[in-house]
Amino acid sequence: MLGLYAYWNGSIIPIEDVKISPLDRGYQFGDGVYEVIRFYAGQLFETGRHLKRLQRSLNELFIPAPINMDELEKTMHALIQQENLAQSDGMIYLQITRGAYPRSHGFPKGPATPNMIMYAQTYPRPDIIEAGAKVILHPDLRWHRVDIKTLNLLGNVLAKQKAEEKGYHEAILHRADVVTEASTANVFIVRKGVIWTHPANEAILNGITRLVVIDLIHSLGIPFVERPFTVDALLTADEVFLTSTTLEVTPVTMIDDLILGEGIPGPLTRKLQEAFTRHMQAHSTSETRRASEETHI
Amino acid sequence: MLGLYAYWNGSIIPIEDVKISPLDRGYQFGDGVYEVIRFYAGQLFETGRHLKRLQRSLNELFIPAPINMDELEKTMHALIQQENLAQSDGMIYLQITRGAYPRSHGFPKGPATPNMIMYAQTYPRPDIIEAGAKVILHPDLRWHRVDIKTLNLLGNVLAKQKAEEKGYHEAILHRADVVTEASTANVFIVRKGVIWTHPANEAILNGITRLVVIDLIHSLGIPFVERPFTVDALLTADEVFLTSTTLEVTPVTMIDDLILGEGIPGPLTRKLQEAFTRHMQAHSTSETRRASEETHI
Repeated sequence: MLGLYAYWNGSIIPIEDVKISPLDRGYQFGDGVYEVIRFYAGQLFETGRHLKRLQRSLNELFIPAPINMDELEKTMHALIQQENLAQSDGMIYLQITRGAYPRSHGFPKGPATPNMIMYAQTYPRPDIIEAGAKVILHPDLRWHRVDIKTLNLLGNVLAKQKAEEKGYHEAILHRADVVTEASTANVFIVRKGVIWTHPANEAILNGITRLVVIDLIHSLGIPFVERPFTVDALLTADEVFLTSTTLEVTPVTMIDDLILGEGIPGPLTRKLQEAFTRHMQAHSTSETRRASEETHI
Repeated sequence: MLGLYAYWNGSIIPIEDVKISPLDRGYQFGDGVYEVIRFYAGQLFETGRHLKRLQRSLNELFIPAPINMDELEKTMHALIQQENLAQSDGMIYLQITRGAYPRSHGFPKGPATPNMIMYAQTYPRPDIIEAGAKVILHPDLRWHRVDIKTLNLLGNVLAKQKAEEKGYHEAILHRADVVTEASTANVFIVRKGVIWTHPANEAILNGITRLVVIDLIHSLGIPFVERPFTVDALLTADEVFLTSTTLEVTPVTMIDDLILGEGIPGPLTRKLQEAFTRHMQAHSTSETRRASEETHI
């Protein structure tokens, strides 16, 4: 459920008081970037990696950061407090655009005035993390810089909508014969005991959960390759799973009309889910300890 | 120069009173469409074709029109009156988004609440229509449905910005070896007396000025093919010109460091510019007459 407040250009105010200009380049061009950061029991998860990626996205679009990253992290905590979500599972949405200017495609001349909005909301763990997800295959129609986490999301929106119209959860995207990622998640497959995922280049968004899961794969000693794989490899995989901030590690049990394996989450997927949960709990604990320590300084 | 007023969801109000929600899907996903419609001496140009394309864009994204197209045209005239632009050259910008909802990629369930903003501004004819434009070549990084006039414009923005950083006016885009269009215009070339332009498929935006110019090419009896052409064909063309609502028919005189032909607008380009101006004047006259006749009913 959406919170009542938002951080808007320096202050926390009621979200309904936020007034975006129709000339905001986020509104007219999608000229901005965003992040979605999970918190569990009020504790932010993998903030450092999210903020590092945010800074990279800003750099790639030549948008100056309107806030320093330490300040930003403090503000996230403040929002969680303000919304009384210190015991809740939820997420922070934050978005930075180039600002409002008379419309012209090239960057505006003169001083930069980026706009930043951020808000918190509760978000329960989706059922499909346990039950498994049904996905459709869909052509990847997106632009060729999806490594930047921008607001140009229509390719994702239309694919996701197609999946939902079929009563499914996600769309796995492919450029010609190569699987890139899903409409809101990265895709991993298991073939003969080896885990595969698309390399982090301009064709995918390098998910934070993707990075966490790759760390876990390495620490569990599971054979792993970061290489493109085909639709055929996907459809004949022993296991398929998705990773994202909200989906964590979600098994795929059905692709279009094809039931994968036995139609239940596979053993390596389960192993990674358990490792992910342990990591998340350990992380939350240490965050809590850190926050608690800071209080005593 | 930007006007003081905007049409916003049914009323004409001061533009600074328009308050876009941060949850508007136009802001979070670029989930919306737009049009830019030119007026000369207060007379709208090719409104019918613009509104037909707008309706098509809405259909492709499954956004219901928040206003019927006749009403929309009347509102454009009202805005021009409100801004005292009845004798001015300018343009109308209009944008329709899917509306504001809690963020989720798939379309919102329940009643549709699209948001529509529209405003008028003065816009003088750019000098480069006479003098010719310098352009860079740039990879076409955009998504694969640019036939829909959506707000997902970062691929255009970044290419245009590259051109402007070099002191140039436009970027001509190519997918691999094929020229598609420019960052804010369509591209035509002349080779041995034949005019070429990319066919209107999902790889280009089917410009209204493109359609007008194709009509003019036919009526002038100039040989014409609507076929893809390569970067090599572009660079060795006898003439190159751009078409768009704001650029009308603009000759290209330089591509990167290559001076085209004699570095001055070519004869077929000039012929089409003259034909375009005649068409535009005839059109404006008849619009004026029609408006005047309507007043007397």
